[in-house]
Amino acid sequence: IAEMKRVPYHIQRDVLDELGVDQVAEKSDFKISANEKLRDAVRCTGPRFKSCFLSFVPLLAWLPRYPFRENAIGDLISGISVGIMHLPQGMAYALLAAVPPVFGLYSSFYPILIYFIFGTSKHISVGTYAVMSVMIGSVTERLAPDSDFVIPGNDTNSTTLDVFSRDAERVKIAATVTFLSGIFQLLLGLVRFGFVVTYLSEPLVRAYTTAAAIHVIVSQLKYSFGINPQRYSGPLSLIYTVIEVCALLGQTNIGTLVVSIVTIIGLVAAKELSALAARKIPIPIPVELITIIIATVVSWQMDLKTEYGVEVVGEIPSGLQAPVAPAVSLLGSMVGDAFALAVVGYGIAISLGRIFALKYAYKVDSNQELIALGLSNSIGGLFNCFAISCSMSRTMVQVSTGGKSQVAGAISAVVILVILLKIGELFEELPKAVLAAIIYVNLQGMMKQFGDICSLWRTNKVDMVVWVMTLILTVLFNPDLGLAASIAFSILTVVFRTQLPKYSILGQVPGTDIYKPVEDYNQVKEIPGIMIFRSSATLYFANAEMYIDALYEKTGVDVAKLLSHKKKLEAKRLRKEKKAAKKAKKEAKKRLSVKEPKDVAAVEAGPDPDTDTPLPRAIILDLSPVNFLDTVGVKTLRNIYKDYGEAGVQVYLCGCQRGVVESMEKGDFFNEKVTKSILFSSVHDAVLYCQQGNSKEVMQGTHL
Amino acid sequence: IAEMKRVPYHIQRDVLDELGVDQVAEKSDFKISANEKLRDAVRCTGPRFKSCFLSFVPLLAWLPRYPFRENAIGDLISGISVGIMHLPQGMAYALLAAVPPVFGLYSSFYPILIYFIFGTSKHISVGTYAVMSVMIGSVTERLAPDSDFVIPGNDTNSTTLDVFSRDAERVKIAATVTFLSGIFQLLLGLVRFGFVVTYLSEPLVRAYTTAAAIHVIVSQLKYSFGINPQRYSGPLSLIYTVIEVCALLGQTNIGTLVVSIVTIIGLVAAKELSALAARKIPIPIPVELITIIIATVVSWQMDLKTEYGVEVVGEIPSGLQAPVAPAVSLLGSMVGDAFALAVVGYGIAISLGRIFALKYAYKVDSNQELIALGLSNSIGGLFNCFAISCSMSRTMVQVSTGGKSQVAGAISAVVILVILLKIGELFEELPKAVLAAIIYVNLQGMMKQFGDICSLWRTNKVDMVVWVMTLILTVLFNPDLGLAASIAFSILTVVFRTQLPKYSILGQVPGTDIYKPVEDYNQVKEIPGIMIFRSSATLYFANAEMYIDALYEKTGVDVAKLLSHKKKLEAKRLRKEKKAAKKAKKEAKKRLSVKEPKDVAAVEAGPDPDTDTPLPRAIILDLSPVNFLDTVGVKTLRNIYKDYGEAGVQVYLCGCQRGVVESMEKGDFFNEKVTKSILFSSVHDAVLYCQQGNSKEVMQGTHL
Repeated sequence: IAEMKRVPYHIQRDVLDELGVDQVAEKSDFKISANEKLRDAVRCTGPRFKSCFLSFVPLLAWLPRYPFRENAIGDLISGISVGIMHLPQGMAYALLAAVPPVFGLYSSFYPILIYFIFGTSKHISVGTYAVMSVMIGSVTERLAPDSDFVIPGNDTNSTTLDVFSRDAERVKIAATVTFLSGIFQLLLGLVRFGFVVTYLSEPLVRAYTTAAAIHVIVSQLKYSFGINPQRYSGPLSLIYTVIEVCALLGQTNIGTLVVSIVTIIGLVAAKELSALAARKIPIPIPVELITIIIATVVSWQMDLKTEYGVEVVGEIPSGLQAPVAPAVSLLGSMVGDAFALAVVGYGIAISLGRIFALKYAYKVDSNQELIALGLSNSIGGLFNCFAISCSMSRTMVQVSTGGKSQVAGAISAVVILVILLKIGELFEELPKAVLAAIIYVNLQGMMKQFGDICSLWRTNKVDMVVWVMTLILTVLFNPDLGLAASIAFSILTVVFRTQLPKYSILGQVPGTDIYKPVEDYNQVKEIPGIMIFRSSATLYFANAEMYIDALYEKTGVDVAKLLSHKKKLEAKRLRKEKKAAKKAKKEAKKRLSVKEPKDVAAVEAGPDPDTDTPLPRAIILDLSPVNFLDTVGVKTLRNIYKDYGEAGVQVYLCGCQRGVVESMEKGDFFNEKVTKSILFSSVHDAVLYCQQGNSKEVMQGTHL
Repeated sequence: IAEMKRVPYHIQRDVLDELGVDQVAEKSDFKISANEKLRDAVRCTGPRFKSCFLSFVPLLAWLPRYPFRENAIGDLISGISVGIMHLPQGMAYALLAAVPPVFGLYSSFYPILIYFIFGTSKHISVGTYAVMSVMIGSVTERLAPDSDFVIPGNDTNSTTLDVFSRDAERVKIAATVTFLSGIFQLLLGLVRFGFVVTYLSEPLVRAYTTAAAIHVIVSQLKYSFGINPQRYSGPLSLIYTVIEVCALLGQTNIGTLVVSIVTIIGLVAAKELSALAARKIPIPIPVELITIIIATVVSWQMDLKTEYGVEVVGEIPSGLQAPVAPAVSLLGSMVGDAFALAVVGYGIAISLGRIFALKYAYKVDSNQELIALGLSNSIGGLFNCFAISCSMSRTMVQVSTGGKSQVAGAISAVVILVILLKIGELFEELPKAVLAAIIYVNLQGMMKQFGDICSLWRTNKVDMVVWVMTLILTVLFNPDLGLAASIAFSILTVVFRTQLPKYSILGQVPGTDIYKPVEDYNQVKEIPGIMIFRSSATLYFANAEMYIDALYEKTGVDVAKLLSHKKKLEAKRLRKEKKAAKKAKKEAKKRLSVKEPKDVAAVEAGPDPDTDTPLPRAIILDLSPVNFLDTVGVKTLRNIYKDYGEAGVQVYLCGCQRGVVESMEKGDFFNEKVTKSILFSSVHDAVLYCQQGNSKEVMQGTHL
């Protein structure tokens, strides 16, 4: 009975076509219309301007409905905790960006307020971020190197550095690149380009942040050792810097080194203790704040700066600064960096935002996030901030201390404002080595990501290669170029994966209509006289040739030999024909037509005497894993059909998706000789069709 | 009956596993062993050194068996015809390479002899090739521009060009870059890298040669108009050159222009005539040879050089030159160009070689071809040749005049040798404009490839985009960089294609076990309560998010809403639990456990009251088009399973290939809760399984 139900693909299709596809289209239109309406409601269509405006300024949508009683206390505690973290992190990351520490505090204030208004994630803590800061640092140090600010000293040999004008220039550069990256994010958001983040796969992002952490650590070594290595830029600069630092280790400032070591040990110990205490105390101990307070007091009491030559933070101006226009003349030289900043900042923020959105069951709008970050950075850039993203460590604190909405972020900004206006100047004696130590300890988490290599080795080797290559590329080519190279590489892996497919001969699981690769299961039986072939990957230009080779090898057919045999036969036939023609001229009346057709038939259908294995009667290509066909793919199928056809083997295709069949139609695969009767819905259909008629001629007859 | 046969995937697999996979492996090993042996026979394993040597020097293998009686006459005629074509082409392409014409003749001699010894293609005519020559020209003109060889003239304003030393320098550069590209080809051949050619898909190669032809034409305009435009290099140089040429049109040398026009008209007419005459005359008329003979005679008689200022070929030294070492100091500055030359030369030769191998039923060995071309170029480079590949037009003549083996090539080399030794100097008066005209007319075929756009528009739009982008990139970025950019773009299209998949809901073709997209056919019926979902493409990082979105949209489930609903319920439950705990403290004896479990059950299995459409009972994901799974893909499937599981919807997977299942195993997709019982061989199996048990609990029981 099952056999009777089956109809070749083309018959079904024709019937279906007659019944009208338009009707179907309407039906399916109707199906998704409910969803479409929901979506349109949020878009800017005519009278819906208000809802559109609300989606552009989410604050107006959620603040009026803010559940004050439930959220207020959690947000307050969380906001203060995060604000306290912003202080040491902001100052430390300012060092990474090669600008004076106070600008780290600005960056922890303006952008956060703007994100509060436009952002859609309730839980992430935007603000300064190590990876972004080190990228900014590479721009500022490239465009305003120390060597540009050397003033000849009093005697001829000594020179001094004009630190003041150097820092002013660097602040301008950092603010300008931040502004530009914000503009890029805004533009990407407005053209709804949020999907670019799909190229940042998880292994890539994790390896990238690990590599960036290595850059961060290397860039901070000079503060920990109190040395002054030369500044390198471009590919391999990390290597050069490490070599230079090693060479300069002899000039280490002992005082600075002692401060570094003591701070690191103290911080690690304190963090471990506070982790232990976390069960008993609801609010985390502000270890870093305590560290910088102690360090500042010690530095001030012992006068580390003059007694031991330890470099300290220096002047911290009180209050806020008026906005300044970005340096337009510099824009041209930083387009690439700004674009990298825009993509990285967005990528980090959206990944974290999504994690928490999933956990707490709400939606972050990827395009609105781009707009929010873009506004934060572009407006922040006008206020001398450097580019921000979102920090994992602060976000964890914000969530764990009970933060439930963006209000926590706004409160943390207020905390920073108070520090900026009143307390900031107290930290002028803080050694920079302490800030570097804080950075190291904060990067612990990223270093732990090296464990990914082991887990990916177990789960997916290709993803492990992506991880390792991303790390290497980013370490060698710096975060900006490295990101581009890593994305290119991870895209290439898709091609690699489809280039090394597994080719299998399928056999039947006895008594069922299921066909499985014979090399995987020894229960399955090949069907006598029928060869079923499948590639695990799609068929396109990069693996078309391998497909043919594998098919020939698996089927045991040497088509070249086969064809050469055919050529010989044909040549023979031609010679005979010529002879015959001559003879015909001579003896015009004699009949000679008996011998010739037999020869032709031998050429057309006869199996090749040279090949050892007998040819199968039919070959079935299972194309269900084929996602699309390009022209090379269509041509390959046509060649296979033709070659085997000449050898007397019929080729059938099965499991083709609609798009694949359309590509074949457009690629002129079908004609009067090759009709859609060679298409079947499933392997079993094709097998039954082959088995039905023992005599091939009868089958062909029914077709035509 | 059909229903009874079906067993869930995991059961089959377990049974098969028990029967022993090792045994199967042996069986399949045996299957391909016959083929492997055949291959080993040709490789260098131990005592088979002789056969290995023969495969390295194919000449030794085929020459002793050369069927003299059958092939000799065809090869002789064909060799002479091709040799005659080498003369004008060699001289013309030397102009492209910006070296004196005689070096084109050298390039038509040495490399051909070497290919005769090492090559495996019997029909292609290796030698000078327009695309390669113009690439060489861009190197020579970049490294030895006219401006380097200006000598101050007698009076202060005029300057003269030291043509002699300029040409010597250019010959050195051309030979060096040729030598280096040969070394690259050799190395690629030795590491068996012949497969790189798979990246050169047909649309790419055709568009690339068309774009190169445009470069060729633009570079020859100066000879046709007798003007001296400035030399540009780098991206967009073609545009600048065209602008410059247009600006200089006023200075056109009328004599040169007349020569150009007359030659082009004459050539086109003669070619048409010879095409008409081809039916009657077996050997093609050497139109180009006749053209240059007439042109030389006319030029000599009318003294075009001095009378009309027409630029002529100039001195052609007789005889051969001794080999010279390549200029090692230049190697560094031409690595990129040499690599591009190596890849392009190989790509063109192997594509043509394969076409004729297929037609005449023999094999070209792609790695041996690389070695043969590499030796031709590296040794040729020592003899001041420029890089060669294989020319379409000469190959066509070689085949159509009866050439049957590499012997024809060797004979053509002998013809060139005779010309070099005796006749060459006769052509000293030949105007360069005539050679430019020959180049234009030879490029006709490549210009006709513009028709590809129309045919690809009909057959495959993505391939058309590849064609157009390759043309644009190669025209704008020159043949070297353009090739890299084009390959990168064509690889990217693979990603694009998998990034815009078609997502479908499948329905049953009534009365069969066939499932088709409901939007394509209106006969198919969705199965009530069961949603069958399929993406046309593989599932990986670049489209994982879209997959989830499409699934949610098609199934009409807003999982975020669903989850938030669940959260609320859970919060309620927690509050109740707290209350209950309080109550329990107060009234310790009272039973309260009745109400609570019911609530939990509602959370676990209850459909969401907020969604309008009722949820399906089960969702079946048809994964048969999935070629591979990366970690993001596995995570996506896990999330889908979890999300729907929490909403009380069971998810089943079907049609997974072995490799996909392995990725899921390694990616820890399966655990105690998620067993392989959710895997099915086909959609129909999964549907039957869902339909079998109306009560879900019973089903689950049989599983555990």
